[in-house]
Amino acid sequence: MRRDRVQALLRDVAEGRLPVESALTQLDSAPVDELDYATVDRHRALRQGFPEVVFGQGKRPEQIVGICERLEAHGDGFLVTRVDEDALVAIAARWPAAELNRVARTALLRGTSRSPGTGTVAVVTAGTSDLPVAEEAAVTLDAFGHEVLRVTDVGVAGIHRILSKRETLEGAKVIIVVAGMDGALPSVVGGLVRVPVIAVPTSVGYGAAFNGIAPLLTMLNSCAAGVTVCNIDNGFGAAVAASRILRS
Amino acid sequence: MRRDRVQALLRDVAEGRLPVESALTQLDSAPVDELDYATVDRHRALRQGFPEVVFGQGKRPEQIVGICERLEAHGDGFLVTRVDEDALVAIAARWPAAELNRVARTALLRGTSRSPGTGTVAVVTAGTSDLPVAEEAAVTLDAFGHEVLRVTDVGVAGIHRILSKRETLEGAKVIIVVAGMDGALPSVVGGLVRVPVIAVPTSVGYGAAFNGIAPLLTMLNSCAAGVTVCNIDNGFGAAVAASRILRS
Amino acid sequence: MRRDRVQALLRDVAEGRLPVESALTQLDSAPVDELDYATVDRHRALRQGFPEVVFGQGKRPEQIVGICERLEAHGDGFLVTRVDEDALVAIAARWPAAELNRVARTALLRGTSRSPGTGTVAVVTAGTSDLPVAEEAAVTLDAFGHEVLRVTDVGVAGIHRILSKRETLEGAKVIIVVAGMDGALPSVVGGLVRVPVIAVPTSVGYGAAFNGIAPLLTMLNSCAAGVTVCNIDNGFGAAVAASRILRS
Amino acid sequence: MRRDRVQALLRDVAEGRLPVESALTQLDSAPVDELDYATVDRHRALRQGFPEVVFGQGKRPEQIVGICERLEAHGDGFLVTRVDEDALVAIAARWPAAELNRVARTALLRGTSRSPGTGTVAVVTAGTSDLPVAEEAAVTLDAFGHEVLRVTDVGVAGIHRILSKRETLEGAKVIIVVAGMDGALPSVVGGLVRVPVIAVPTSVGYGAAFNGIAPLLTMLNSCAAGVTVCNIDNGFGAAVAASRILRS
Amino acid sequence: MRRDRVQALLRDVAEGRLPVESALTQLDSAPVDELDYATVDRHRALRQGFPEVVFGQGKRPEQIVGICERLEAHGDGFLVTRVDEDALVAIAARWPAAELNRVARTALLRGTSRSPGTGTVAVVTAGTSDLPVAEEAAVTLDAFGHEVLRVTDVGVAGIHRILSKRETLEGAKVIIVVAGMDGALPSVVGGLVRVPVIAVPTSVGYGAAFNGIAPLLTMLNSCAAGVTVCNIDNGFGAAVAASRILRS
Amino acid sequence: MRRDRVQALLRDVAEGRLPVESALTQLDSAPVDELDYATVDRHRALRQGFPEVVFGQGKRPEQIVGICERLEAHGDGFLVTRVDEDALVAIAARWPAAELNRVARTALLRGTSRSPGTGTVAVVTAGTSDLPVAEEAAVTLDAFGHEVLRVTDVGVAGIHRILSKRETLEGAKVIIVVAGMDGALPSVVGGLVRVPVIAVPTSVGYGAAFNGIAPLLTMLNSCAAGVTVCNIDNGFGAAVAASRILRS
Amino acid sequence: MRRDRVQALLRDVAEGRLPVESALTQLDSAPVDELDYATVDRHRALRQGFPEVVFGQGKRPEQIVGICERLEAHGDGFLVTRVDEDALVAIAARWPAAELNRVARTALLRGTSRSPGTGTVAVVTAGTSDLPVAEEAAVTLDAFGHEVLRVTDVGVAGIHRILSKRETLEGAKVIIVVAGMDGALPSVVGGLVRVPVIAVPTSVGYGAAFNGIAPLLTMLNSCAAGVTVCNIDNGFGAAVAASRILRS
Amino acid sequence: MRRDRVQALLRDVAEGRLPVESALTQLDSAPVDELDYATVDRHRALRQGFPEVVFGQGKRPEQIVGICERLEAHGDGFLVTRVDEDALVAIAARWPAAELNRVARTALLRGTSRSPGTGTVAVVTAGTSDLPVAEEAAVTLDAFGHEVLRVTDVGVAGIHRILSKRETLEGAKVIIVVAGMDGALPSVVGGLVRVPVIAVPTSVGYGAAFNGIAPLLTMLNSCAAGVTVCNIDNGFGAAVAASRILRS
Repeated sequence: MRRDRVQALLRDVAEGRLPVESALTQLDSAPVDELDYATVDRHRALRQGFPEVVFGQGKRPEQIVGICERLEAHGDGFLVTRVDEDALVAIAARWPAAELNRVARTALLRGTSRSPGTGTVAVVTAGTSDLPVAEEAAVTLDAFGHEVLRVTDVGVAGIHRILSKRETLEGAKVIIVVAGMDGALPSVVGGLVRVPVIAVPTSVGYGAAFNGIAPLLTMLNSCAAGVTVCNIDNGFGAAVAASRILRS
Repeated sequence: MRRDRVQALLRDVAEGRLPVESALTQLDSAPVDELDYATVDRHRALRQGFPEVVFGQGKRPEQIVGICERLEAHGDGFLVTRVDEDALVAIAARWPAAELNRVARTALLRGTSRSPGTGTVAVVTAGTSDLPVAEEAAVTLDAFGHEVLRVTDVGVAGIHRILSKRETLEGAKVIIVVAGMDGALPSVVGGLVRVPVIAVPTSVGYGAAFNGIAPLLTMLNSCAAGVTVCNIDNGFGAAVAASRILRS
Repeated sequence: MRRDRVQALLRDVAEGRLPVESALTQLDSAPVDELDYATVDRHRALRQGFPEVVFGQGKRPEQIVGICERLEAHGDGFLVTRVDEDALVAIAARWPAAELNRVARTALLRGTSRSPGTGTVAVVTAGTSDLPVAEEAAVTLDAFGHEVLRVTDVGVAGIHRILSKRETLEGAKVIIVVAGMDGALPSVVGGLVRVPVIAVPTSVGYGAAFNGIAPLLTMLNSCAAGVTVCNIDNGFGAAVAASRILRS
Repeated sequence: MRRDRVQALLRDVAEGRLPVESALTQLDSAPVDELDYATVDRHRALRQGFPEVVFGQGKRPEQIVGICERLEAHGDGFLVTRVDEDALVAIAARWPAAELNRVARTALLRGTSRSPGTGTVAVVTAGTSDLPVAEEAAVTLDAFGHEVLRVTDVGVAGIHRILSKRETLEGAKVIIVVAGMDGALPSVVGGLVRVPVIAVPTSVGYGAAFNGIAPLLTMLNSCAAGVTVCNIDNGFGAAVAASRILRS
Repeated sequence: MRRDRVQALLRDVAEGRLPVESALTQLDSAPVDELDYATVDRHRALRQGFPEVVFGQGKRPEQIVGICERLEAHGDGFLVTRVDEDALVAIAARWPAAELNRVARTALLRGTSRSPGTGTVAVVTAGTSDLPVAEEAAVTLDAFGHEVLRVTDVGVAGIHRILSKRETLEGAKVIIVVAGMDGALPSVVGGLVRVPVIAVPTSVGYGAAFNGIAPLLTMLNSCAAGVTVCNIDNGFGAAVAASRILRS
Repeated sequence: MRRDRVQALLRDVAEGRLPVESALTQLDSAPVDELDYATVDRHRALRQGFPEVVFGQGKRPEQIVGICERLEAHGDGFLVTRVDEDALVAIAARWPAAELNRVARTALLRGTSRSPGTGTVAVVTAGTSDLPVAEEAAVTLDAFGHEVLRVTDVGVAGIHRILSKRETLEGAKVIIVVAGMDGALPSVVGGLVRVPVIAVPTSVGYGAAFNGIAPLLTMLNSCAAGVTVCNIDNGFGAAVAASRILRS
Repeated sequence: MRRDRVQALLRDVAEGRLPVESALTQLDSAPVDELDYATVDRHRALRQGFPEVVFGQGKRPEQIVGICERLEAHGDGFLVTRVDEDALVAIAARWPAAELNRVARTALLRGTSRSPGTGTVAVVTAGTSDLPVAEEAAVTLDAFGHEVLRVTDVGVAGIHRILSKRETLEGAKVIIVVAGMDGALPSVVGGLVRVPVIAVPTSVGYGAAFNGIAPLLTMLNSCAAGVTVCNIDNGFGAAVAASRILRS
Repeated sequence: MRRDRVQALLRDVAEGRLPVESALTQLDSAPVDELDYATVDRHRALRQGFPEVVFGQGKRPEQIVGICERLEAHGDGFLVTRVDEDALVAIAARWPAAELNRVARTALLRGTSRSPGTGTVAVVTAGTSDLPVAEEAAVTLDAFGHEVLRVTDVGVAGIHRILSKRETLEGAKVIIVVAGMDGALPSVVGGLVRVPVIAVPTSVGYGAAFNGIAPLLTMLNSCAAGVTVCNIDNGFGAAVAASRILRS
């Protein structure tokens, strides 16, 4: 039940138009807004103030275009993640202004008004194979109006690569570290800086990497205190977590 | 950089052989002090600016007391986590001013100067069995100089409990959500608020909870975007993550 | 041994045509009906009184059609689950009256006489990606003669969506809750209502969802007491469980 | 906010004692009762209409007694599950009328008024080692006011044992099947009867039983359609699920 | 229904004392013997012709003695497996003739008549730590009346040890191979001989042996064809499997 | 070193053609035949007296044909398992007499002399989906010269199906039970008969069947003593195990 | 150290402001060159003195060719691992002198100067299916300038095969043992020789081999002391480990 | 069969005292020495030339003393690993010259003659909790006659600690890196040096460290090529692996 409807109901009670018991029943059974199913597919929780994002995986091109059309109608633009090539082509045909990123597998149509975040988010990758996940994070941050700084291919096997970036990292407000295989990079980064570090394991690797379980466990057990972890390959989630920090 | 090298460098400066700025630069970039093994046990990375914390698990009372004495000598106080009863008693005998928390299994001797954080951290638990982990987080935050707000026993099986706390939650800068069993609470909280949400799975439960694996997986797969996750039972780590956010 | 054959045997004994010992031997070795292998493939136990259902997965279109022809010959209609597109086309060509559901991947030819169940089953889904499993449940319930009420896309990240459906849910006799990713919805539903709640995890999600293991564990550990769980993606099984309740 | 308090509030509005806006604010921020932390520990969701149950595991005897005293004050009696010997002794000392069951590890003080359920629940065990879990279910059902029929030690390795009980089973409204090791019994029972079958895996067994994982998986994959599953060793949950069915 | 009761029933029919329909009803409802619960605990299926065995784990000494007394009353002797020290002492006190084996954790009271098997079973162990499981197998075989040949400490790290036993092994009718850690021995034995090889993984080892999972997987994947596997530490089961072969 | 070469060597020594030390060196370094890599691929250990079998999986048609040609040259015929359609066609073209079994995915060219086994092996399946694995076992047994009796589609959800086959089963010398999903059938069979029971889990099923892990664990934990287990889908291995029993 | 800083440092040296030794020391200890992202992809740590290797998996043919062109420009040749057929063709077209190995899935263009290693590495395989991994190791060793001795198809099911190679193995400086399925071969080899043994599990096998987990666990638990293990299918890693030993 | 016995046999043949066929039979059936079971317990393969080591875990003090007495009788001294306090006391009482190490849980009685290895092994630990495993390795290396250099508490969360030890590490011939929790240290060390790196995961940590699985997976997936891995907590095995390298 919307706030204005509760207000109207209370007025009806105050003015004697509605008996107490009837009001009680209505309040009892309808504590919140009835949400119509026909609204667009919002795959991840959006009531927290983030722009509209469409999770493209498992949807056909025409479905994605249909959802995006409704989102565009609200004048907010849209971000589509996990889009395959066919859907990217369909989106490009329908919205020539949309920005496609084939590494990140995203399509972005910028809205008019968003610019909430101040402060830079560093998106750090251990290897070039981690780029798709890192780019998903970077594009999402960009779509949400945040500055992004990419630091690429600085895995711990060549430890001086990340050490040489230390000053750069310390200038960021939040650091997202994306790594597959041994997933050791967040521990080193977490030990170098005092800003929030969000670790994202990737399914890169083979054998006992078990599609990301190995780096996931590494990150959960990071010996650098205060590193938090997202789901495997979840660049989008890491970006939202960073945005939550920058907005808070 | 070893102590004798620093000494030599300072002599060069004193005798005009090295400009102050050069010396400063060298000190700045030089690896770090050679740390003598005899120094105290710092179980989690502390060079990021956090106060000294001792991980008590697996250490004998006299070892913990010994470590704490050295920490106290630096005038910084100390926080000991995962302390068993014997060690708590030993600490209380040696430092009557130490604050013991038997639920959190912590001992805290406050230092003189720390007060870095502003902003409140809400520590939310699903059930009373999750309190030890939540208290470890709360005591750590307190030790680091942050305000803590406890919201207890608001698991999703009685969904109105957490709903009634919504306004309270929105006043926090960061929310730590501690839950065992089905680990569903962070998804609901993440959907209610836009501030950072850090989820901590606990080993509470039985059978297919698998000592925390069930809530850990739930949280990693949270349908509320931007929820990040700590290791099972890692209240300390969640507090450090929250502190990183508040300080950034 | 069929009941009429036992009867005949006993008559033979009563009338002296069969010695006691011979009768004993026959009874000894044939305690139950000899079931002929040539009967149709009944992939799930059907002697409990449920209509005939064919599990289509792993069967070729012509095999499925063959089995359905035999079922139809008994005048009972049939339900085929887990049918791929090719088999759907073959069924539609052979039985124009069959009802195809491409989301549920089912084909249903209604029989003449069944209408056992009274009472509504609510089929609730957390997200639109869970629809195939939910529809399999809904179509099965319909085929078994039960009323179905669909409540769609009410995952916990937007908690007010499910709260607004509370009255609706309380009108149901049984509730089937279908959810992937964090699988948190059954805990909330189980806390809202007192009717039986059957949870079905889906393989929707990625990374640490592990093809449904994450929501499966969540549901087994539900903090709402009395929630029972079906196999991953097993919408059919949930429907049969609901039907058992409605018929009991 | 309790229903009577909402009623009072509405009366205040109707009678002009409370302005509409004030009432609105109060309703807005307190949709449900503010639950005081000092209230009793209700470890599993109880707002669905089930009597009060205390989960004894991990609680000290004096804590359990304290909680039970408050429950008794409401005149409802109580059921404590997972109680160890020390707590059983403490309860017996405090309430001589309490019924202790050392196999089930439960203590029950009957309340005055409950008698909701009609219809019998059969609680079936594969082996004598499964009795503690089965008894937890039976005692809980009894506490909730349901008839219980115990069928014991009828595992499938001696298949005629369960076959000889078929008629008995068919007289039940719900059947709870408790089994460890291979967990095969629910499949056989599910094939014999058409009533709801709730399977409970137990941690009985050794080696590759993996503390209940083996029978849990067996039950989730039951070839008898419509068998639903509870958590490992969760006799209490199975009883609540059965009670939900009997009451619906 | 016992065979003699069916016989009596048929006689009644033959002699006209019982109408056909009444006999039919009785046969219908009681297809098998009604097994009284008060009979002894037979933890593993024994209707196949094996002597009575009591699974001692989780039973108190007085319970075990009670069960054994009933078994002895049938004049068959008994074998108790997985007995702890207390129960061994209690059995020795009650039956001085019982043979105790503290490595195997068994107690055996020989019956009067059994001597079914001919042919030797070789029980082979990789290391001395595997002896408890191997001895459980050996004692069980002895109790069942089979010849046992022990071949001890012939693990593959010293491959010539097992090679030197080849002739010995070829004289056996069945070979039970017991191994922990890498579980490699059954593959070598299976390649050396053509007789049946039954592999038993043990929980010996540490770290990634995972309490027997490692050797279990090794044995299931044995590159020697036709090796079959028992549960972890299940020496009893291996002995029964061997006995089935010798009797068949 | 082949036995005839050792014999020749000893003759040379006896007749003075070879000094003792030279013979010693030769014996020392060549205790076994030097196996040329160019010999045929024998994927499973064959020195135990079993006929030659080719594991077709992962091999190209021309490779399989090449291997089979060499086997045929020894006059022994061959059995190829896990053959895909292309290879079956290639084999049929080259050896019109080869017997193809598309369900079992095998090709068999019978040799001239083998007829070792007496006694029947019953191959029992729970469901029709388990047939490919069961047929692999049956064809292998046939190739090895054993009698096979197929008992099909007798899963425990319709328990009377297997009960009606009891007499049939008792006539077998060995029983192979093939089952997926809950894998419960071997426990029932093992309880019905006293002959050796070899259980083979299949990867049939979905969700928490985990490609055969569920029935594998069920079988390892069978409550019927003396059931042994083969690898998932390993019909060939079960047949070799049965053959070892029949030949011993 | 950034390039401009190195330049400045060198100017200081040139102009007598900095002694050569000081400059050398600074360069020695200074972090490292700022590595431009545009440099070639070096997927595995190469600063340890190993030649340049390109990990081909997941890269498109034109990317691989581009990277190799840059490597060739340094005159060092290159080794590409995990190359699919398309990339092999592209490499062959661009560098006719490149040596392609389709079993190992490698392409090697020899450089001019490398010949570091002395001593032979034996690469031993259990079965022919393990050859791709073994060949990846062998080609890598060859590329690094080491002698390789291949010992093929000597799995433990025919134990005399490996025994006949004992002398050969003892001549090697390092032994790499590659095995799938039961992974038992390294235990036997480790018991036969005293040189370093590096075990590589392969994903060969089916069912409970779990894509290499079974042999991985076998090897980690090897009963032959001092066997070390590489990741599943990681022939390249084993070769680098062997090369580390030969160079040390 | 011992070499001298084969020699004697050949002489008998040469001198006509033994017919060819008899010699053939003897050679056939006794290819290796008959090893007497009464020899000492050699828990890990010792025929490769390593000194005698006793695995103390699971053995009673008197058993360990008994075994050691036999080893001492050969004049070789002994090393006992995994000894608990009781056994340490018993050893100290029997051999006052034995060197006890309570951190490593070892007892060492030096023999007279061993000094095989030249070259230093660095034993590096991430944290002080890893010391027991590292010390087991160090004591074993010492017992085998190798130089050991300990580098302690240099985990990656304070990355400069390990960097400051780089020169030290490069002086070693082999490096053993012991780490629990995230297990990230071997990747960094492997990237810093070119000598062999042997990684040992420890069971240190909690929650998702899963008793060493997390660091084990990290190490198997190390992004530094050529790192090999031992079993969890297997300091002894790492030492033997290092010794194999130094001796080869």
